[in-house]
Amino acid sequence: MADYTKMWSELGLDLEGHNALLSILGSAYGDIFLSQKNRPEGMKYFDFVMSEVHGLRIQELMEAKAQRRIVVGSYCVFVPEELILAVDGVSVGLCAGAEFNFEGAEEVLPRNTCALIKSAFGFKLGKVCPYLEASDVVVGENTCDGKKKSYEILAPMVKDLYVMDLPQMKTDMGRTFLKEEYRRFMAKLERVSGKKITPESLKMGIEIVNAKRAAVKRLAAIRAADPAPISGLDALLVNQVFFYDDPVRFTHSVNQLCDELEERVKNGIGVSAPETTRVLVSGCPMAVPNWKLPMLIESSNAVIVGEESCVGERGVRWLTESKDGTVEDLLDAITARYFSIDCAVFTPNPSRVEYVKEMAKKLNAQGVIHYSLQFCQPYIVESGPVEKELEHASIPTLRLETDYSQEDAGQLKTRIEAFIERLEKK
Amino acid sequence: MADYTKMWSELGLDLEGHNALLSILGSAYGDIFLSQKNRPEGMKYFDFVMSEVHGLRIQELMEAKAQRRIVVGSYCVFVPEELILAVDGVSVGLCAGAEFNFEGAEEVLPRNTCALIKSAFGFKLGKVCPYLEASDVVVGENTCDGKKKSYEILAPMVKDLYVMDLPQMKTDMGRTFLKEEYRRFMAKLERVSGKKITPESLKMGIEIVNAKRAAVKRLAAIRAADPAPISGLDALLVNQVFFYDDPVRFTHSVNQLCDELEERVKNGIGVSAPETTRVLVSGCPMAVPNWKLPMLIESSNAVIVGEESCVGERGVRWLTESKDGTVEDLLDAITARYFSIDCAVFTPNPSRVEYVKEMAKKLNAQGVIHYSLQFCQPYIVESGPVEKELEHASIPTLRLETDYSQEDAGQLKTRIEAFIERLEKK
Ligand code: SF4
Ligand code: SF4
Ligand code: SF4
Ligand code: SF4
Repeated sequence: MADYTKMWSELGLDLEGHNALLSILGSAYGDIFLSQKNRPEGMKYFDFVMSEVHGLRIQELMEAKAQRRIVVGSYCVFVPEELILAVDGVSVGLCAGAEFNFEGAEEVLPRNTCALIKSAFGFKLGKVCPYLEASDVVVGENTCDGKKKSYEILAPMVKDLYVMDLPQMKTDMGRTFLKEEYRRFMAKLERVSGKKITPESLKMGIEIVNAKRAAVKRLAAIRAADPAPISGLDALLVNQVFFYDDPVRFTHSVNQLCDELEERVKNGIGVSAPETTRVLVSGCPMAVPNWKLPMLIESSNAVIVGEESCVGERGVRWLTESKDGTVEDLLDAITARYFSIDCAVFTPNPSRVEYVKEMAKKLNAQGVIHYSLQFCQPYIVESGPVEKELEHASIPTLRLETDYSQEDAGQLKTRIEAFIERLEKK
Repeated sequence: MADYTKMWSELGLDLEGHNALLSILGSAYGDIFLSQKNRPEGMKYFDFVMSEVHGLRIQELMEAKAQRRIVVGSYCVFVPEELILAVDGVSVGLCAGAEFNFEGAEEVLPRNTCALIKSAFGFKLGKVCPYLEASDVVVGENTCDGKKKSYEILAPMVKDLYVMDLPQMKTDMGRTFLKEEYRRFMAKLERVSGKKITPESLKMGIEIVNAKRAAVKRLAAIRAADPAPISGLDALLVNQVFFYDDPVRFTHSVNQLCDELEERVKNGIGVSAPETTRVLVSGCPMAVPNWKLPMLIESSNAVIVGEESCVGERGVRWLTESKDGTVEDLLDAITARYFSIDCAVFTPNPSRVEYVKEMAKKLNAQGVIHYSLQFCQPYIVESGPVEKELEHASIPTLRLETDYSQEDAGQLKTRIEAFIERLEKK
């Protein structure tokens, strides 16, 4: 690997902490991913991306910046990448999945804050996230209380924090509100980048993102096969890399992987034996390197066949209608697309559980594991009705609530194993 | 006291649980309120209201309903009483302040839910709140995650749950959004009541509520005097009764109390010795019978001179401009009034801390106690910057986080006493 020390110090990273993080990340990756059996060849690309996630990719961002392209970081799939691409910007996800410097985070945030938010603050305060440091604009959004209020604490720590308001109900007025917020965001992007959004640039942005989402949807659909052609861990990784990689190259690599997986399916080749117990995971997003739950599940004689999550199906399910028209027309299409997202921050949110049922059926999952991050009110409150409704539809469901620590791993493992046994008996 | 058993059973209350609640409430009231020294005569009215809070007042509600007036229950000061009065409805507050049936609440809600919400569910599931049972419409609002998502759980338990969406930022679009939500609420009220809102009825509603708020503001201002003419406990009680009582009668009684207090001030009479340490309380609302914190403070050689809370200053601070005009004009005035509220669910919310400073100065408070309910993200996140900013302005600040249980009372008392000592040395 090249020496990126100079780049990292120029970005203001704390080299010692950053090295510690990278070495933990690297060894976890080896243990969890590289040790898997029967991995598709196509995963090599993603292994490479991960090995260079703070290296080559950051260098690309720096080169983009040198060419006066802006880097826009965000924490939620409600921030439209289409708009960022329309000003020739680079969109990067900033969600963090490691328990790093939580003590620091807890000095500025309530202890009862979900691990995703604490991790973001731990990374910021510990100066170990090159994506955050490279961002010209950091976009916050008013989704849950935890994020909404902690952006106030983040604001003085970053160069340019921009907050997007969101409606909380799917009313006509809510849709109008969302559209106006996207319009305000467009103006912000134009201001920072110095570039004007045109019907052409916006249409191009839509098509790049559509292709990226379509590729991941293709991957998701292939997982309906038995034996499963790819592990849940690897599929999750693809969904995680979605937020970091160059979109065009990513799309190409996912499609290449899909070609291989379709071959596998044709030949009855899989990562696990036929009739291995199949599980769908539903709930909060899992950011790199939060691989805790899938690892526990897939080491318990089961395979994950889908993720009803923003790092997964909820992030790629809808495409944006691409058409010839004015910026206003395209903005309407983008609003319609994003207004469909059935995140638990909306109330009520009945379509989500309907879709979990549909996914379980399409993917031949025998049961659902509902995953909530501790202290995440929106998903934890929904988990009760979701479990009831799924069990009512004869889909066994296990509700788990956890964080990023390894302390409860043993206890979770026991519950997961008991659940898998329940599914096997069905 | 009259026998209300028949009325209570007709409302569907659980008589046994309800009796238990009333008897705890009655004895707590005796211990905390009636034992105070030098109470103003004018508090007799409020003592009476409290003694009949589930009796006479509920009978009045039932009589109003018999005359085809609707009863509208709500959980937040963002629900405009002006609009409810404009259809000749009765507005009642439903927030609950007692640890009643939390086991029941925790079966349907996350354990990490604030006590205010758990209490509301405990009351509903235990069938002990006649206000809730008498409500023709229960209005929820999307303020914090806890309330927003738990209304979904409440919906099937009540006759008619109506949810109001709210913006989360003070932008122009946010104001428009709020106005449209109020317009939608007006239509709902007209539908349920069968009455049309006219400029006259709306103006009358505005004036009744303005008079009520003006009376409480008058009370708040008198508390600037030293010695304090009224205890913080009694002033809080007035602010709590605000949400239950007939507004016109309430206004009259508060003004009578104020006449007496002004006399007291003129004669240098107070509830405690001159130069008693003066504290301002700021933070989450305190619903009946949540008197825990003020009792701890006022039994520690200090007097509370103000409440920066929705049950307090934040609920009454702004009046609605009353003018001759169309319903649309008046709706604009109402929107402007409510859009000023600086609740922590908004982001950012800088005016709140500015106003805390102003209150401390106006009321000659020597220090601020910031009160957050455990698990209340919005207020807990704000409490950090609020403390910093107040201490920076040389206003000593104590941050407390608690719930409705008495378990931490000893520990809180120790911290409060130490804080009061710090103020005394100043
Ligand atoms: S779960 Fe909700 S808040 Fe989180 S990334 Fe997805 S849409 Fe955004
Ligand atoms: S996991 Fe839940 S609490 Fe955490 S950031 Fe996402 S929506 Fe908010
Ligand atoms: S604190 Fe906020 S949410 Fe609670 S009653 Fe006040 S305005 Fe409503
Ligand atoms: S105290 Fe906080 S968490 Fe509880 S209902 Fe009010 S705003 Fe929500």
